[in-house]
Amino acid sequence: MERLGNLAKFKSSCPFLARTKSSTLRTLCTKASPRYPSLSKLTVKATGCPVMGPALQMRSGQLVAGYASVAGSADVSKIHQHKGVDTSSADIAMCPHASKALAAARMAEDLAKAKSKADKEASSKASTSKANAGCPFHTASAESARKAAAPGGFDYERFYVEELEKKHQDASYRYFNNINRKADKFPIAHTGNAKDEVEVWCANDYLGMGNNPVVLETMHRTLDTYGHGAGGTRNIAGNTGMHLALEEELAQLHRKPAALVFSSCYVANDATLTTLGSKLPGCVYFSDVMNHASMIVGMKHSGAKRVIFKHNDLEDLEAKLASYPKETPKIIAFESVYSMCGTIGPIAEICDLAERYGALTFLDEVHAVGLYGPHGAGVAEHLDWEAQKAQGMNPEPIKGSVMDRIDIITGTLGKAYGAVGGYIAGSTDMVDMVRSYASGFIFTTSLPPANMAGARASISYQRHFLGDRQLKQINVRDLKSRFESLDIPVIPGPSHIVPVLVGDPALTRKASDTLLAKHNVYVQAINYPTVARGEERLRFTVTPGHTVEQIARLATAVDTTFKELGIKRTSDWKALGGHANVGMPDAEPVEPIWSDKQIGLANGTAPKTLRTGQKRIVDQKAVQVVREKFNDLLGPYSEPSKAPVVNPLPLDLPSASLHVPSPVAASA
Amino acid sequence: MERLGNLAKFKSSCPFLARTKSSTLRTLCTKASPRYPSLSKLTVKATGCPVMGPALQMRSGQLVAGYASVAGSADVSKIHQHKGVDTSSADIAMCPHASKALAAARMAEDLAKAKSKADKEASSKASTSKANAGCPFHTASAESARKAAAPGGFDYERFYVEELEKKHQDASYRYFNNINRKADKFPIAHTGNAKDEVEVWCANDYLGMGNNPVVLETMHRTLDTYGHGAGGTRNIAGNTGMHLALEEELAQLHRKPAALVFSSCYVANDATLTTLGSKLPGCVYFSDVMNHASMIVGMKHSGAKRVIFKHNDLEDLEAKLASYPKETPKIIAFESVYSMCGTIGPIAEICDLAERYGALTFLDEVHAVGLYGPHGAGVAEHLDWEAQKAQGMNPEPIKGSVMDRIDIITGTLGKAYGAVGGYIAGSTDMVDMVRSYASGFIFTTSLPPANMAGARASISYQRHFLGDRQLKQINVRDLKSRFESLDIPVIPGPSHIVPVLVGDPALTRKASDTLLAKHNVYVQAINYPTVARGEERLRFTVTPGHTVEQIARLATAVDTTFKELGIKRTSDWKALGGHANVGMPDAEPVEPIWSDKQIGLANGTAPKTLRTGQKRIVDQKAVQVVREKFNDLLGPYSEPSKAPVVNPLPLDLPSASLHVPSPVAASA
Repeated sequence: MERLGNLAKFKSSCPFLARTKSSTLRTLCTKASPRYPSLSKLTVKATGCPVMGPALQMRSGQLVAGYASVAGSADVSKIHQHKGVDTSSADIAMCPHASKALAAARMAEDLAKAKSKADKEASSKASTSKANAGCPFHTASAESARKAAAPGGFDYERFYVEELEKKHQDASYRYFNNINRKADKFPIAHTGNAKDEVEVWCANDYLGMGNNPVVLETMHRTLDTYGHGAGGTRNIAGNTGMHLALEEELAQLHRKPAALVFSSCYVANDATLTTLGSKLPGCVYFSDVMNHASMIVGMKHSGAKRVIFKHNDLEDLEAKLASYPKETPKIIAFESVYSMCGTIGPIAEICDLAERYGALTFLDEVHAVGLYGPHGAGVAEHLDWEAQKAQGMNPEPIKGSVMDRIDIITGTLGKAYGAVGGYIAGSTDMVDMVRSYASGFIFTTSLPPANMAGARASISYQRHFLGDRQLKQINVRDLKSRFESLDIPVIPGPSHIVPVLVGDPALTRKASDTLLAKHNVYVQAINYPTVARGEERLRFTVTPGHTVEQIARLATAVDTTFKELGIKRTSDWKALGGHANVGMPDAEPVEPIWSDKQIGLANGTAPKTLRTGQKRIVDQKAVQVVREKFNDLLGPYSEPSKAPVVNPLPLDLPSASLHVPSPVAASA
Repeated sequence: MERLGNLAKFKSSCPFLARTKSSTLRTLCTKASPRYPSLSKLTVKATGCPVMGPALQMRSGQLVAGYASVAGSADVSKIHQHKGVDTSSADIAMCPHASKALAAARMAEDLAKAKSKADKEASSKASTSKANAGCPFHTASAESARKAAAPGGFDYERFYVEELEKKHQDASYRYFNNINRKADKFPIAHTGNAKDEVEVWCANDYLGMGNNPVVLETMHRTLDTYGHGAGGTRNIAGNTGMHLALEEELAQLHRKPAALVFSSCYVANDATLTTLGSKLPGCVYFSDVMNHASMIVGMKHSGAKRVIFKHNDLEDLEAKLASYPKETPKIIAFESVYSMCGTIGPIAEICDLAERYGALTFLDEVHAVGLYGPHGAGVAEHLDWEAQKAQGMNPEPIKGSVMDRIDIITGTLGKAYGAVGGYIAGSTDMVDMVRSYASGFIFTTSLPPANMAGARASISYQRHFLGDRQLKQINVRDLKSRFESLDIPVIPGPSHIVPVLVGDPALTRKASDTLLAKHNVYVQAINYPTVARGEERLRFTVTPGHTVEQIARLATAVDTTFKELGIKRTSDWKALGGHANVGMPDAEPVEPIWSDKQIGLANGTAPKTLRTGQKRIVDQKAVQVVREKFNDLLGPYSEPSKAPVVNPLPLDLPSASLHVPSPVAASA
């Protein structure tokens, strides 16, 4: 209420606002700046204001987190860089505007609170004079909360604001960076501004399969053949040959009789655990404390009892299993690679316990499929490397192998395979039961055929080509050893994840901001609740597509940022007795799960790390295998030989290239 | 255990099995037939066997449902058709093999039960002589249940089989048809055999937007620019300009301040209702009894109290609302178009009640977005046609309009928009709260940029072009009136859904099978639990892409099938006093929600129904608008004018066309 009245007050106190029409102000508030898309156009304008400019800059530099937007503050820093203003908050504090800016920043903070209060009170008819002093940056949002609570009714809008305020207060409010990963310049992305390029160091497209040429080629062909959406649930018009073929490929990958695809692996975990736990009479879940949210909600939704065991702790798990009768249905739910710390579950040993105590094993290989094993089936496959390699494309299970002993494997198509969707693999009747009872599978439109085709192309390519997995591990080793030699505290682990301990939420966010603003390095800060308080970190992911120069520059950038922000080094943590597995006394060295021999370092067959200007290695034999797999549905692939100036396998995709049906095919 | 022993016994009793290697048999059992993909290769072979052939045919014709596979039996019928064998079960009963076949069918049934029993007993060490007589079609599946229960432990595999048996027993076990909808021949699809084409009459790609040329063009360009997967959650590397632009488009479509995209609308409903219900203190849900499964699970997962009101019954709803204090947080959850019966919720009246009793309104427009309203925003928009039309592209809300009075709108990108994904739209703080707290949104990889771009292109196109919506309604009216004149029992309703009552699960399935096998018409049977027992139906969806000849043929095919199977007509139901709203005494006629004026029938601006050979209407102005919207991220669209023999806007996409970057763009 009285919004225009408020606006009039703002106008009277600011020459800029006084000159600007109300409708223009509203547009400025709600439109993102094309150059700095995390900011509104008005905020960008405000950086030019003698009062608000330093205040905004101060806010972006403040370490008291909460309101500091990762995206926003990095963009504000960039504006100031472009204007020649130094971005470090320490320097700001030295500048002549500092005290004024600090005051303005605090005022902005207070005004934000006043605005929140005003929202609450507007509907409960109380009025506050503070609200009238509200900041113009919040006016638009206040206007959007148009809906007043009915007299005597619950004030929903006020409730939302309070819940959001909690997130601001404990620094867990999230600002999303606008990151557009370019297919032709992997691992480069642009921000909201197409000309502002950054290196991506935290995506889960672990192998760059999102831009693999045979994946894109297959998707283009499938789009032309079957269009976009699936058009229905799997039961009603949405069950295509592409879905069936993908599920067959997945079953073969894991050497299981059956597999089933879901909208995502979040849905796969949720739906499968909900169904099993609610169906199996008296079922008890045994869940690793570090399990992913999707598994936790699935177990919770099932209504079954859930017993938490310590992370990767076999003794604790065994003690808990032993306290239930053997005939009680039990499911041990755990992961192979724990994505935020990079640890790996003791899979074989858990299978031993499962057998001893009559439990099912439910293994989440989300951060491992595509990345481990001779065919990319995950850590369970990796553990029997030689036998699995010898078995080749034969889909029969290997009796007694770790992968064979796992009852239910879940995986994603959205990370190493660079696609979208999730799945389970296991026995025919288990999969059929989930297919028949899981609401989250049954009552939803199936994923588009083109995405299913792209996922299958990716899986098939990785089953036939080891080089990407090897090169990834080489690069992971390279980055880890550079960090270690610079005393940067890598949390030790045997996997491909490179977590670097910072140990403070605001400092982690600041490090992420600084790397983006000063070094064009995008690595998201990982704070509570994703990791425990005090164990905040930067989580780096290295791909086969990162060049040796990029890896070297990254190590230097992180070192510089640690220096600039005074972040603790490994030796500092060691001096404190160690923390979060960093600098622990008498710590035994952790061996990587990929051996020298598996990487090809033992016999010199290892792939070479890329250098600037080099393109990814594309295995032409694997490409041929993939193409042949789609013959039945897309027809045999034929090189578009009659078309002039074309590249049959576009390794270097032009960013604005247009789709044109090949003249050969069009006339066929 | 002793599987090879069993196999040896089968071999000794059948000359075909005796000649075939065990490994080959296993492959034949597990591989789908390329020609009849719902059947294993072995089953197809078995149709040639003098004993099993008639038995299988008999089974496919049996009306005692349960084991009768929609897909499977239709395919078996086709094999017999191709072999010149008559497919009707009545005729089979007259044929000389009939009694032998019936005996064999019963034997097959018994053997299936024996197999299930054998599976159970194999692990509990008991042995059964019946299992040794098991049918070869079940051997493979028995072998896949390799995993024996640990001694004394719970027998999981046996449990799965029992749960599946329940589905078979109550005829709710689902066999998925393999349906591949062809982009260049909409609404034609092929089955597992690429040459076996059927007309699709039940897909939810309601407008054929899955093959709209500007959608596919935009997706091809986005794939080339940004590759396949998003590569991360929205918080970590998976928040792209394509996501942000789509959400802005959705917010504008519904004239709301904000929107948020999820993996699917199942996830959107589940995550949003779970979050709101668990956060709002003492929240009570008021839920229409016909609500979709995704809403039901969301409310259930929230832990909030749920009060069910009778379908579209305002009196019942009001009585229930009135029994709670006004200050209690309440959410009325309902739909605009109920997809299985085609009724439409009384949206404005529910808004009145919500205001009176202090409740939030949560409206699922899944089966309405893209299809109703001058801009395709759904039924809520449709109800204020003139005002909404006059407001045009201005995204400001229209105070007091029905759409403005709805607090939370949810919609899908997977049906009328022909894409994938779901969303919510509402106030900034509501959306921000769900974004910040909903586990199902936070912890999952975001959808691929190309799909987001395709969805936005589709929404934008439909906002600017009314013709598809009008033509759809014309075709719906045409089909309904043809059915009515043939005394075919259409369940009356004001929407685009054409439900035809059959009233018996086995008969519905048989009708669906017959339409597929004899008339190449694919319409899925809708049985319990999707609809109430006794109200089983065929649910037809008609698109602007169906030609007048196809509609006429469909009506005749359904009429013939009703005659052949003796399914009750409207007059039959009327004689019985009416059932499921068909043939009710003193029923008032139901007016379609699209008026003659809105369709353009009043002033002669209505689009013309397509005839065989005519291609869909593509509105070039809307195409231009869509292209311009992607200028910022994909660059301006330029016609590939220098390339030879190319079609700038491929209306008639060759099914096997290959993607080739245009020479113009490649050299740019």
